Amino acid sequence: MDQTIIDEIIKIVGKENALTSHEERKCYSFDARTDGTIPDLVVFPTSAQEVSQILILANKHRFPVIPRGQGSGLTGGSIPINGGVVLTFTRMNKILEIDAKNLVAVVEPGVITFVFQEEVAKYGLFYPPDPASYKYSSIGGNVAECSGGPNSLKYGVTRDYVLGLEVVKGTGEIINTGVKTMKGVVGYDLTRLFVGSEGTLGVITKIILKLIPAPEAKATILALFSHVEDTAEAVSGIVAARIVPSTIEFMDQASIRCSEQANPMGIPEDIEGLLLIEIDGDGDAIKTLAQKIKTVLVQHNATDVKLTQDPVEAEKLWQARRVVSQATYNLNPVKIAEDVVVPRSNIPTLIRFLEETGKKHGIPILSFGHAGDGNFHVSLMIKDTKEDYEKAHKAVEEIFSETIRLGGTLSGEHGIGTAKAPYIGMELSPVVIETMKSIKRIFDPNYILNPGKIFVAN
Amino acid sequence: MDQTIIDEIIKIVGKENALTSHEERKCYSFDARTDGTIPDLVVFPTSAQEVSQILILANKHRFPVIPRGQGSGLTGGSIPINGGVVLTFTRMNKILEIDAKNLVAVVEPGVITFVFQEEVAKYGLFYPPDPASYKYSSIGGNVAECSGGPNSLKYGVTRDYVLGLEVVKGTGEIINTGVKTMKGVVGYDLTRLFVGSEGTLGVITKIILKLIPAPEAKATILALFSHVEDTAEAVSGIVAARIVPSTIEFMDQASIRCSEQANPMGIPEDIEGLLLIEIDGDGDAIKTLAQKIKTVLVQHNATDVKLTQDPVEAEKLWQARRVVSQATYNLNPVKIAEDVVVPRSNIPTLIRFLEETGKKHGIPILSFGHAGDGNFHVSLMIKDTKEDYEKAHKAVEEIFSETIRLGGTLSGEHGIGTAKAPYIGMELSPVVIETMKSIKRIFDPNYILNPGKIFVAN
Repeated sequence: MDQTIIDEIIKIVGKENALTSHEERKCYSFDARTDGTIPDLVVFPTSAQEVSQILILANKHRFPVIPRGQGSGLTGGSIPINGGVVLTFTRMNKILEIDAKNLVAVVEPGVITFVFQEEVAKYGLFYPPDPASYKYSSIGGNVAECSGGPNSLKYGVTRDYVLGLEVVKGTGEIINTGVKTMKGVVGYDLTRLFVGSEGTLGVITKIILKLIPAPEAKATILALFSHVEDTAEAVSGIVAARIVPSTIEFMDQASIRCSEQANPMGIPEDIEGLLLIEIDGDGDAIKTLAQKIKTVLVQHNATDVKLTQDPVEAEKLWQARRVVSQATYNLNPVKIAEDVVVPRSNIPTLIRFLEETGKKHGIPILSFGHAGDGNFHVSLMIKDTKEDYEKAHKAVEEIFSETIRLGGTLSGEHGIGTAKAPYIGMELSPVVIETMKSIKRIFDPNYILNPGKIFVAN
Repeated sequence: MDQTIIDEIIKIVGKENALTSHEERKCYSFDARTDGTIPDLVVFPTSAQEVSQILILANKHRFPVIPRGQGSGLTGGSIPINGGVVLTFTRMNKILEIDAKNLVAVVEPGVITFVFQEEVAKYGLFYPPDPASYKYSSIGGNVAECSGGPNSLKYGVTRDYVLGLEVVKGTGEIINTGVKTMKGVVGYDLTRLFVGSEGTLGVITKIILKLIPAPEAKATILALFSHVEDTAEAVSGIVAARIVPSTIEFMDQASIRCSEQANPMGIPEDIEGLLLIEIDGDGDAIKTLAQKIKTVLVQHNATDVKLTQDPVEAEKLWQARRVVSQATYNLNPVKIAEDVVVPRSNIPTLIRFLEETGKKHGIPILSFGHAGDGNFHVSLMIKDTKEDYEKAHKAVEEIFSETIRLGGTLSGEHGIGTAKAPYIGMELSPVVIETMKSIKRIFDPNYILNPGKIFVAN
């Protein structure tokens, strides 16, 4: 980029809100994906007006603008693919309002999800979306990717908590979408159009969020199964008993073995599936509900069921699940992380398919995740060699193809970014993709915003 | 319309699926709004392919196409404003699939909401959206308007249950949006863009719906208040006690008096507010919860609190609320029905404002509705005279203006249609309206679909 343009942008945000050195800029070239390019400039906007001015300049001089929260995404949503200016929102991190009477909050995009949750908890309130990254990811990033997490089963995903937005369109115009009330149907739903649009339509500068009263009590249940098929049947059994847990997490045999090697809980070698269930709600009801779930699990051949309402004990039950993501790196140094969803009844078919695919290509494939939603985090662990990458890409294609065949989708909560952009044609028809691209053109006619994301080419 | 074009359309759907006589066509010129025009033809499509063929023809010959469910809408969403072809979906009314294991159903748009609810109840499942019209309105219409109902407080609106759609774009292309799983973030959220778009972007031909396990038990509570301010405080008190009822319905003094005259329950004259609360959930928990709510209500000066778990007794408590909508016609023959939403804490201010506005213009204004959401059905009861209509329009403008001032929105669940199209500029900025119109042009470049709805002019 031309130095005079860079200087002009720095003038907009102020010197103290810009990073220009190569070393500093390099830190903004990657998220979980490392194939990004180094941006020409990194700035920390402090208002929608600054964002607007930068976008107007970008349209004039045609340089890419890449919005970024904490850079904790898994699919390359925040990385530059061809330089440009990264807008980092870590300095727009104020909670502007918590209206406990109306169960509404207004935040800037840079607020850390966990910080926000802690803050609303002081009012006896609850903001449920809990992506694995919630302790360090920002709400702006969560909205851009429509993040979910274990809580989604009962409470839904980020989309379900966004009531309205302030957004700077790709063209630089600042708009307000949605409402500050629980309902609203005036015109087209621009709010949800922005949710999950991965920074390709506009730059989010303010978020109106719905809150709910915090549940009184919680219980955690761990169950082990000798046959993976039983885990899926047990989940259906819980639903059939009219129970909606807040969380039903699953680990397959490979994940369990991997986490046992890193941090043994004493889970027997022949265990093929693990379910970790959390329920929350009214204090009196929780005990009864927990016993009901225990009964269902035993009926579905759980070999071991542990139940607790003590937070310290609960954390022990979570141990295998907590360590697995990191422990996978003991198998191989590179992780290709996928995020497929299948209808719950197809979980066993998918799990068996993943086992076979791993064997066929000679690479460890582990899967764990949100069984209640049928949303699996599939980790292909490979060496950093061309050969292994090729194997993994073949395996990924086969996994996507099977996912679609089973009535599923390529991504439940990680988004498309650059990682899955080449594959969206497996799920979306050419007309749908063309329609989406037409929408992109309305908001960002000069393709300034976050190029290369969702669509390989505009 | 030219007779050769009409004949061509009849050939597509078959003679048995077309209405041509003046008398028959006239029945499709109104919903709750009576200012529509008589369509040139009414057809009952039986497939997406037929809809597609008609839309392709419409683009060729430029005639309006108006999708219609049961015509029970309140804002003119299904009425022709300039003739054209009405597509009525009463013959595409099959429930195609109920997948109890995966909590998903697939329906055609003409399925009656209540019929669907009854059907899923056989599997122990629950489809919560319950607009007042649910016994006769269709799910397709509910989706097009993003209908809500009393249940919205706990369970959300129609939007929250639509996972995916088959839609015929205005251009005639058939597309599938969304997923058949609980999560999915592949590309832009076209599904929610269609929800609430009032048949202006595409014609819905199939709907994938999310289901939830049916709650075990239910309790109903009626509370009377001498001061309307106490009702709002009581609602806040319930939330502060971390309780989320499925329903909190409100009636103001004028509504109570009106329903008492039609069907006396013995509610004292000086009662300014009534709350009707329903809770549902686990059988054991309900009793405790109901008592908790009773305590909160008494603390907030409820003069009388009745509580029951018996369905027959519950129906008696609902009596005033059930009869009020019809009873309003005892005051005057014409109803102007609005559907504003304000933050809950502003309910008393709005109620007082409505009282004053009614007095000022000399027309009865009643309000009742969903206090939990702050969503009020405001009924202006007038005579069928030019003078009264003028008064009402002035009053409506003042009500909208106050609603916006109080941080609210013009419509919570009825939609815009023709009724509120002149007013959307009070809530949406010119840039937002222009953005919405640009989206309209992508889906329907020749302005074939449902002209005059949402936007007065394209």
